[in-house]
Amino acid sequence: MIIMVGISRILSLILLVSSCIFINLSTVPAAATSERKFTWEISYQYKSLDCYKKLAVAINGMTPGPTISAEQGDTIVVDVINNLLMENVAIHWHGIRQRGTRWSDGTDGVTQCAIMPGETYKYTFVVDRAGTFMYHSHYGLQREAGLYGLINVSLPIGVSEPFNYDFDRGIILSDWFHHSAYQHATGLSSITFQWVGEPQSLLINGRGNYSCSGLAASVCNSTNPECLPSALTVISGKTYRLRIASLTSLSALSFQIEDHEMTVVEAEGQYVEPFVVKNLYIYSGETYSVLVKANQDSSRNYWTSINVISRQPKTPNGLAIFNYYPNHFHKFPSTNPPLGPLWNDTRSQIIQSRSIKARQGFVVTPPKKPDRVIVLLNTQNTIDGYIRWSLNNVSHTLPSTPLLIAMKENITDVFDPNPPPEDYDSANYDIYSVPSNTNSVSSSSIYRLEFNSTVDIILQNSNSMTENVSESHPWHLHGHDFWVLGFGEGKFNLSRDNQSYNLVDPIMKNTVPLHPYGWTALRFKADNPGVWLFHCHIEAHFYLGMLVVFESGVEKVGDIPMSNYGCGKTKA
Amino acid sequence: MIIMVGISRILSLILLVSSCIFINLSTVPAAATSERKFTWEISYQYKSLDCYKKLAVAINGMTPGPTISAEQGDTIVVDVINNLLMENVAIHWHGIRQRGTRWSDGTDGVTQCAIMPGETYKYTFVVDRAGTFMYHSHYGLQREAGLYGLINVSLPIGVSEPFNYDFDRGIILSDWFHHSAYQHATGLSSITFQWVGEPQSLLINGRGNYSCSGLAASVCNSTNPECLPSALTVISGKTYRLRIASLTSLSALSFQIEDHEMTVVEAEGQYVEPFVVKNLYIYSGETYSVLVKANQDSSRNYWTSINVISRQPKTPNGLAIFNYYPNHFHKFPSTNPPLGPLWNDTRSQIIQSRSIKARQGFVVTPPKKPDRVIVLLNTQNTIDGYIRWSLNNVSHTLPSTPLLIAMKENITDVFDPNPPPEDYDSANYDIYSVPSNTNSVSSSSIYRLEFNSTVDIILQNSNSMTENVSESHPWHLHGHDFWVLGFGEGKFNLSRDNQSYNLVDPIMKNTVPLHPYGWTALRFKADNPGVWLFHCHIEAHFYLGMLVVFESGVEKVGDIPMSNYGCGKTKA
Repeated sequence: MIIMVGISRILSLILLVSSCIFINLSTVPAAATSERKFTWEISYQYKSLDCYKKLAVAINGMTPGPTISAEQGDTIVVDVINNLLMENVAIHWHGIRQRGTRWSDGTDGVTQCAIMPGETYKYTFVVDRAGTFMYHSHYGLQREAGLYGLINVSLPIGVSEPFNYDFDRGIILSDWFHHSAYQHATGLSSITFQWVGEPQSLLINGRGNYSCSGLAASVCNSTNPECLPSALTVISGKTYRLRIASLTSLSALSFQIEDHEMTVVEAEGQYVEPFVVKNLYIYSGETYSVLVKANQDSSRNYWTSINVISRQPKTPNGLAIFNYYPNHFHKFPSTNPPLGPLWNDTRSQIIQSRSIKARQGFVVTPPKKPDRVIVLLNTQNTIDGYIRWSLNNVSHTLPSTPLLIAMKENITDVFDPNPPPEDYDSANYDIYSVPSNTNSVSSSSIYRLEFNSTVDIILQNSNSMTENVSESHPWHLHGHDFWVLGFGEGKFNLSRDNQSYNLVDPIMKNTVPLHPYGWTALRFKADNPGVWLFHCHIEAHFYLGMLVVFESGVEKVGDIPMSNYGCGKTKA
Repeated sequence: MIIMVGISRILSLILLVSSCIFINLSTVPAAATSERKFTWEISYQYKSLDCYKKLAVAINGMTPGPTISAEQGDTIVVDVINNLLMENVAIHWHGIRQRGTRWSDGTDGVTQCAIMPGETYKYTFVVDRAGTFMYHSHYGLQREAGLYGLINVSLPIGVSEPFNYDFDRGIILSDWFHHSAYQHATGLSSITFQWVGEPQSLLINGRGNYSCSGLAASVCNSTNPECLPSALTVISGKTYRLRIASLTSLSALSFQIEDHEMTVVEAEGQYVEPFVVKNLYIYSGETYSVLVKANQDSSRNYWTSINVISRQPKTPNGLAIFNYYPNHFHKFPSTNPPLGPLWNDTRSQIIQSRSIKARQGFVVTPPKKPDRVIVLLNTQNTIDGYIRWSLNNVSHTLPSTPLLIAMKENITDVFDPNPPPEDYDSANYDIYSVPSNTNSVSSSSIYRLEFNSTVDIILQNSNSMTENVSESHPWHLHGHDFWVLGFGEGKFNLSRDNQSYNLVDPIMKNTVPLHPYGWTALRFKADNPGVWLFHCHIEAHFYLGMLVVFESGVEKVGDIPMSNYGCGKTKA
């Protein structure tokens, strides 16, 4: 009898501990629309996320950072205290459109001066719709140092999702370099270009497992409990909503759970017409909700795995445990973890991209025609011998004066006033070959969009500077969602390919992949006054110029808080 | 004949190359008082200063940085471009009093907001007297990452030094950690305190030689020419003025040249009554000129060495080659390098400190009496479990708003308005024991000094938190020179020990050691309007609170340049 009680207690404890390991998003807020306040201290901390001990940028000692759980309509207030000694910080609330709070977008060089060591900055914004979002550093290469987390916005009490589930869990996917962001950046901006190599590990909820062989235990200890695989504990027969976010610095991923199918139901705050997958392709900056039913053999655990796609993988798959209660949450399945799909099966990636459509009953119909079409050829280039990435042969730079302040206040000489190119020489450009001339130019020019106009963006991929290599690029738009009109292979042809656009039930998203040698067509309404980044979410590509800036209706932006000032030309 | 010419050319080349290896300060400016402009780009670079490859903070790709050579009265203009990606920078011109340019002192938290990445900041100041000075980062622990160099100010043409020499050479001494400044700082501010360990190497002109055994050649390569010992090439019979500066992060040093005596003639811009030494004790932040005659066997080279003193050495001695032309400058002497004095021979260190007096004919007599005496007990402490250093039980902090701006503009709530303590309970404090209660308090309080008043500072050392350990502390005053009135062993007794003050020919300096278990008495006139740091020059001690701030006549400070603003409470 005593023994029985003991076991029961242990099992309860296991259940409690294991649910804590997976980030728990199921807390339903008690009150309606309210203000939720957080105080975050940012500091360097030694972490052994994949058993290898290195410095990480942590929030209140944690990486990934704490999940923000809120209800639609809530105001979020985050006091960010920078304790990084010599390094600044800025935090972007990825997927939050910042309507009415343009200055809170957290993008260094665009909406604010970075927060200096010793300073406290207050982010205030409204989470105006339910869904799965994320936050992360938008400063230098600081995201890859570990500054990221999840934002989970629930519906108001009394409003139901158009699908059913029993529990809600957050899953953060990331990749992990053993080099510091400074080492990474120094290599990227060296002649000759020095690549630090692929990430050492893939992490699921901040846990990976690097092979420590040959390293001192003080540096890498594979028995460190910090790097035990994370576990998602489930109860047989129940349905789980997994809110999955990719915060990778570099890697595109496929996510799968051994022997379990997933139904995709949400993408970045929009309901998806449900479809079933065995693996979910997910690109950096994307979030999805999938439903998983715990309908397999409950006497054992199963593997969850992630693997690198659309880039020759040199990083081992990341693993976690799909734990059927009451099995021990750290009991490794005796089966082999799922390997995931072939990294270069681009066709299947495009098929999944095309499958993501707005859910019937929740379709927001796009305008029939755009007012303007901007075609962006994505290329890898050189400028004075340095490797860069460019759009229509322009590699973009951000000034040290935030553009939102500069444009609203007419501070001169901050950016190039000449408009950047809206197209490239499509007829004569061979997207399948290494360009014979890789030279490009650097510019701080801006696309100025008529307020409330409808803009189409055609992203066109090409061969990189390496033969037979075209990298995928996850493009992310700040301040807006766009309609995803289509994906294609090869070179986009406006008069032909716009016939294939999905104008019936396109999903609205803020991040979308551009597939190797392919094109992606987007449409958005420039209806959010401000200055907004649109960029590749691979941190190194962004650092090397793979971004554009959109301005629209900046004169309508209200008073920018003084705390956003202080750098570049915004000193007293 | 052809062979002879060939050899002669090779020898000339060797001479040329080897003089370049030691920093050459002998260039005499052609014009009288003028403006000297420099543009410095600060960036992270991979360096192998001691054969071990790591990131360093470099100026125009160099560490140590370029020497500033100027003539007395020149205006120096340095445009500092911060290309550190995420890290700020501030540069202090150590020994330059900044009369009339208080805002150019380069101290983060005191005179300016640190320079953010992407920004350019212009330092402008006059080098108003001849001598040997230095510059270095005054931001976080950035100095130890390699941001430092020499300032050599020569007399106006036609004015002679009171001693003779043939050539002039700069020698920068430093210590070198393989850890990053972020790793160092994270350890220092952890519970429990984590010390990264002693520096891996001592460097002479940026070169050391770490034992690479067991490390991959890509990480540490002992045949890398970057870490060949530096060479000082001399011609037999000539006299050399060595301008020696210690930029160590931690280590107090002894400097010696095998079989050669040195005559000390200058300290920090003041002439020293000449005295001869076999080894020169030099503390972080100090500069000296010594004369060395190349009067030994010219058929061979000799060793130059530095060794750690006043702290149990765990870092191997640093070595360079004293190269008699025409021997090859990289031919190692077959003799053993001088070991230097015993690390704990405190008595001999005090004797040398007392030997440094103003040169006859150049004595500036100090005021006979002080208007105020401030006694500062130096202790190692804990606050909430964190290790700190304190003065009279106060561990000082700097605000994120520069004090010079805050005090001049009456910006409130930036610092603690209560004055810090001027003394400690001398009668009851046992300086020879680990304190029973190590608790201390943190404060941003300021010593406000009447303008033009004469202030005595008594630095009192004590036992650290480790039994039988009292560390030496090199104290550095910004904006002023002080008279060095005396050094003593044990506990200072005002009524007894002020009788021993040297009021006849005390040297004026800006940096002075406080010896283990000893005291040091200083006097200065608060005649430079502004806000000025006085602090231990050991970077980690400064970081942990071993500093005080002096304000005097801040209302007389002219308009502070707008470029100093932008952080803390000085935003637009």
